[in-house]
Amino acid sequence: MAEFGFALHATDGGARRGTVTTGRGAIATPAFMPVGTAGTVKGLYLDQVKDAGADIILGNTYHLMLRPGAERIDRLGGLHRFIGWDRPILTDSGGFQVMSLSALRQMSEEGVTFKSHVDGAIHEMSPERSIEIQGLLGSDIQMQLDECVALPADADTMKAAMELSLRWAERCRVAFGDQPGKAMFGIVQGGDDESLREQSARALTAMDLKGYSIGGLAVGEPQEVMLAMLDVVCPILPAEKPRYLMGVGTPQDLLRSVARGVDMFDCVMPTRSGRHGLAFTRRGRVNLKNARHAEDHRPLDDQMACPASRDYSRAYLHHLIRSGEMLGMMLLSWHNTFYYQWLMREMRSAIEQGRFAAFAAETEAVWEQGDIEAL
Amino acid sequence: MAEFGFALHATDGGARRGTVTTGRGAIATPAFMPVGTAGTVKGLYLDQVKDAGADIILGNTYHLMLRPGAERIDRLGGLHRFIGWDRPILTDSGGFQVMSLSALRQMSEEGVTFKSHVDGAIHEMSPERSIEIQGLLGSDIQMQLDECVALPADADTMKAAMELSLRWAERCRVAFGDQPGKAMFGIVQGGDDESLREQSARALTAMDLKGYSIGGLAVGEPQEVMLAMLDVVCPILPAEKPRYLMGVGTPQDLLRSVARGVDMFDCVMPTRSGRHGLAFTRRGRVNLKNARHAEDHRPLDDQMACPASRDYSRAYLHHLIRSGEMLGMMLLSWHNTFYYQWLMREMRSAIEQGRFAAFAAETEAVWEQGDIEAL
Repeated sequence: MAEFGFALHATDGGARRGTVTTGRGAIATPAFMPVGTAGTVKGLYLDQVKDAGADIILGNTYHLMLRPGAERIDRLGGLHRFIGWDRPILTDSGGFQVMSLSALRQMSEEGVTFKSHVDGAIHEMSPERSIEIQGLLGSDIQMQLDECVALPADADTMKAAMELSLRWAERCRVAFGDQPGKAMFGIVQGGDDESLREQSARALTAMDLKGYSIGGLAVGEPQEVMLAMLDVVCPILPAEKPRYLMGVGTPQDLLRSVARGVDMFDCVMPTRSGRHGLAFTRRGRVNLKNARHAEDHRPLDDQMACPASRDYSRAYLHHLIRSGEMLGMMLLSWHNTFYYQWLMREMRSAIEQGRFAAFAAETEAVWEQGDIEAL
Repeated sequence: MAEFGFALHATDGGARRGTVTTGRGAIATPAFMPVGTAGTVKGLYLDQVKDAGADIILGNTYHLMLRPGAERIDRLGGLHRFIGWDRPILTDSGGFQVMSLSALRQMSEEGVTFKSHVDGAIHEMSPERSIEIQGLLGSDIQMQLDECVALPADADTMKAAMELSLRWAERCRVAFGDQPGKAMFGIVQGGDDESLREQSARALTAMDLKGYSIGGLAVGEPQEVMLAMLDVVCPILPAEKPRYLMGVGTPQDLLRSVARGVDMFDCVMPTRSGRHGLAFTRRGRVNLKNARHAEDHRPLDDQMACPASRDYSRAYLHHLIRSGEMLGMMLLSWHNTFYYQWLMREMRSAIEQGRFAAFAAETEAVWEQGDIEAL
């Protein structure tokens, strides 16, 4: 089995072109990971996700531990077999969703106790239990349990969460041990405070983990704050390890974060927006609910090699979304997933060719011009 | 362009093996038509419907006239082009859904006035307008406007509705005129009254229409009542014209109705049941919500040449349905649609080989035995 590793093939300004190797296959970076929340990338067949070009998807530990349960997935042969995906899977630690979805949370040094939003059952999650669950799922890239605070937050709260996350990183490192072909990433915290972010990045780097996530961003702060944190954190993180910006984001977020040295991303945006009628295209955002599409026979983008983008009229998509039909959600989730993967391919190619800055400027300019003229 | 027609290739007891020819292609009968209510067979790509073996799908005039509107579909090139389906489409008249879905209906000899359930707008539907709308949609097989009463109903109500439907059949016949490659079917009404059904069938037969529907069944009556009506009606209807039993039904309904000489069916059951976790299989009904499937790694039916039936475990389907995930609805709708088409193919083959009665008995016996043993 291949060892877990990261190879850096090219850099272009801050942007990096690399390959993450895992025991289950390689991931070309910069990479966007479609989110398979509860064991399914919502509204898509996994063949569509694969054909779109995704090397890796993400599974949510919180959702899966509650339903169907980590031990059950283990008995069924692990998450890959359960859902029918043979490429790498990254799992989060469950911590973020414990904070955002569950009721009656109690945090302590030991871990967090919470009530399931599904059935009200009480669960305990410690750093060790999070790693155990991710192991039961069979995750290839696992995350430390961390504490993530919503922004804005006061300085003491951000500092305490960052420091607790560091102690939990060490416990997760020990719990994870040495697993061939797999990795456990530490998560940089520190809110929107540059000094806290710097401390966190330095302390995690000293732990010599296999990769580093940047968490606690895209939680309500303006984009420039997020980018400022990347400007602090990325130069500290070791060049020879992959960097994963969690839960981000819009196509513009991806472009600007890759420019600052981020290698991996995940976000529900392509599928969630798709379900609500919003398409991301080479020409920016297109809201299919808008009446301008009602009699537009043209596809979303006839230059995209995706049936959802190319073979269905805007008029039909408009009708499906207005009517609340599943097919509308399926098609736009598919298109968006394809577009995100297309954008990552284009970025990878631009970095390889040393023209990332020009590509980024051109891409943003075309988004700015907006959608094709209404008929 | 091929003329509309019906060729009877074989009979076996009451069961008939035939081909309906339309200007847009042929339909092997007995045929089950997946329902594309609002321009989409819910939860399916039309390629999946086609690959399952459907020669024809159904569109609902009521839904489409309200949204996106018949004139709009016409401007967009017709329903086939709008939804991306190049095989025949049958449309109902809109009458049934006016009765079941709209508020503030007012019936008169002229037609029916009703309020849209979508936006509250007032619409008028006459026999002539129904045919006009179906023409705007580009429907290959159109239905007369009829009045359908819920059962049980009193004798006067059933008689009046049957007689009004006959007068409307004549108006629709005139309005439809002569359209090459297309057909307008009359609809036998009469509730659960044998004498009314007989009168209706005889009067419609005398109009020499291109095909005959049997309506007003599967509206709450027991299956034996429906079958008794078929026993009255089918022998009266001309052998050289296709017979379509509207809105029916379960796999058993199909089997028993084919035995009595029905050629065409439509029903939302495969997709609606699929969305609610119910699968129809060679071994009868399987409720995927049931806890017995929670750790069952076996597929629904590994002998079915459909990925949804063969390549996904019951445990995963159970999880998806319990979690309300779109993919669960998509997979079970796909499986059910495939199973229905498979069942029709098997019936056609059995009729060709003169073994329909044995096939029907065997099929019912296997349903009766039930699902594979729980693990």
